[in-house]
Amino acid sequence: MSTQAPVTTRPANYMDGTTIRDGMRDIVDRETPRIEKLVADWLARGLDQLYLIGCGGSFATLEPPKWLADKYSTLPVDRYSAWEFVHRAPARLTTRSAVALGSHSGTTEEVLEALRLAKSRGATTVSFSPSSTPLTQAADFALTYNSPAANLSKLLLGYMLITEVLVQHAQHPVGTELKNAIQTLPEAMHEAKQATEARSRALAAEYRDAQNFYVIGTGLLGGLAYQFAICNLLEMQWTHATSLNAAEFRHGPLEIVQPGLPMIFLLGADETRTETERAMEFSRRHGARIIAFDLKDIPGIHPLFAPFGVHLPLQWLNWYLGVERNHVISTRRYMGRVPY
Amino acid sequence: MSTQAPVTTRPANYMDGTTIRDGMRDIVDRETPRIEKLVADWLARGLDQLYLIGCGGSFATLEPPKWLADKYSTLPVDRYSAWEFVHRAPARLTTRSAVALGSHSGTTEEVLEALRLAKSRGATTVSFSPSSTPLTQAADFALTYNSPAANLSKLLLGYMLITEVLVQHAQHPVGTELKNAIQTLPEAMHEAKQATEARSRALAAEYRDAQNFYVIGTGLLGGLAYQFAICNLLEMQWTHATSLNAAEFRHGPLEIVQPGLPMIFLLGADETRTETERAMEFSRRHGARIIAFDLKDIPGIHPLFAPFGVHLPLQWLNWYLGVERNHVISTRRYMGRVPY
Repeated sequence: MSTQAPVTTRPANYMDGTTIRDGMRDIVDRETPRIEKLVADWLARGLDQLYLIGCGGSFATLEPPKWLADKYSTLPVDRYSAWEFVHRAPARLTTRSAVALGSHSGTTEEVLEALRLAKSRGATTVSFSPSSTPLTQAADFALTYNSPAANLSKLLLGYMLITEVLVQHAQHPVGTELKNAIQTLPEAMHEAKQATEARSRALAAEYRDAQNFYVIGTGLLGGLAYQFAICNLLEMQWTHATSLNAAEFRHGPLEIVQPGLPMIFLLGADETRTETERAMEFSRRHGARIIAFDLKDIPGIHPLFAPFGVHLPLQWLNWYLGVERNHVISTRRYMGRVPY
Repeated sequence: MSTQAPVTTRPANYMDGTTIRDGMRDIVDRETPRIEKLVADWLARGLDQLYLIGCGGSFATLEPPKWLADKYSTLPVDRYSAWEFVHRAPARLTTRSAVALGSHSGTTEEVLEALRLAKSRGATTVSFSPSSTPLTQAADFALTYNSPAANLSKLLLGYMLITEVLVQHAQHPVGTELKNAIQTLPEAMHEAKQATEARSRALAAEYRDAQNFYVIGTGLLGGLAYQFAICNLLEMQWTHATSLNAAEFRHGPLEIVQPGLPMIFLLGADETRTETERAMEFSRRHGARIIAFDLKDIPGIHPLFAPFGVHLPLQWLNWYLGVERNHVISTRRYMGRVPY
């Protein structure tokens, strides 16, 4: 896979083989009926508020579910990084609240603190975490995954949960449409994964020396832009990165555009596309180096599943940037090595 | 004021003289009774949702009001950049919603679009904008300011509005406490402004060549970190800048810390302080160049008014960075000069 370093020194890449498809299939098959029952129980007890809680990648993956809930449902939904939730201790957090908490390790200090706060208010809790983690064990209801594709797995669980809210609470036709589409999403992702590798590999070679990226998305792709900046570029590549919402780009950030600036734009196929296109075309006119990852180039993915489809070329880019730079992307300078 | 350029070539600085105090005093005196009546009217018509809408600096200043509403009130409140609001077209946006929209020019395309969407759903609208702008003229109810300190003015109107919600809707004692404190805030800001100039001026000299800042805050100071990054460093200084939430710092971003990295930490005096201190002390141990702007160093400002107090040393830093760099901070490469 690399000419710079023997592949045996590299960690397993969840982009290889059938890992993504199999992990998603497992989640869809096991958790669909359980989520139906969970949401029915919530509605029976008079649910009037949903909180979506996580940190880092887990936090990022909860943005699209919030977007879908806002657009199609009258249920109030808030999304917070876990300390933001704990310190706010929202007044609306009551016995009529449900709190969904995501953590791959299941040991994140502030996510467990958020769980305790939720329980102390009599709210019902649901976890997005692998089997047998402390979070899984402590939540009232555990949704689990068995896949190294942690953020994709949590994204899928968030989508499945909100989709069921749209079906049962909002009774919006898009709920049924998405619920049906989720059944075929694992296979569609497998196809799209294979279709997106070559271009990202070439881009990694082209951008191997870039040291300061701007990553821009909005709407369903705003969380993914943030995730790529903080979990991939900052955390794994040790490369400066700023994520911006395309809806905000015109209101200040555009003044940083200059010839040669590396910029990554994430384009969806819904009504938010226009804002990202405007920001991208502006930046192109003024000389920036543009990478566009566009759902329209990724066949077979429903427009409302944009953060699944666009995840794929980004992860290939992350992987091959590591290969090009001879940098093992699972290496950390600080996390798990020094006190925080 | 500068040895590099004659002061006559520079734009007026709203940090000079009594501009801040007088502008805030005017807002408090004129708008307090009008906001009392506005919120009473909202409650009489069965308000069940508040939306806070703006772009760039206007968007940033609406984060603390959202934080206060979440913590102390059961009224659902959402905050969006204007296109995010327009494209979501939230299902909860109804005749029982109020929509507050901020814009200094009052001509921002998507803010006016958001106003139209709100009206089309029968929601009631309120503007934060100077007198006589198109937004002021089009909103159902206009809250106005007459000050060049645009973001501080919109921040103040947002605080006054939410404070009145806490008084009348939540009937929480912190509402009355804040409402009383707002009466003396203009004078407190004037004192704090004078007390914060010298240190920021020295810091500007020390950091004049820094080209890539990380700006970190959380809670009531999360919006201000974002505002300083996009409205001051990117827009005015043309300097790379990333804002991060201190609650997220540990979950990826910390891996970018390295000796000499310029980092600005915004510290409040409430329960969120711990997260920012942890991120700051971690970064210091690993060699970053640290600027701390700490509300505890700014006397006379209530802890819940942190984004007012900490605004002051940041704006002095912005001003004196321009002086040190012989860069007129009102200069734009693109905004208002080329098509977007």
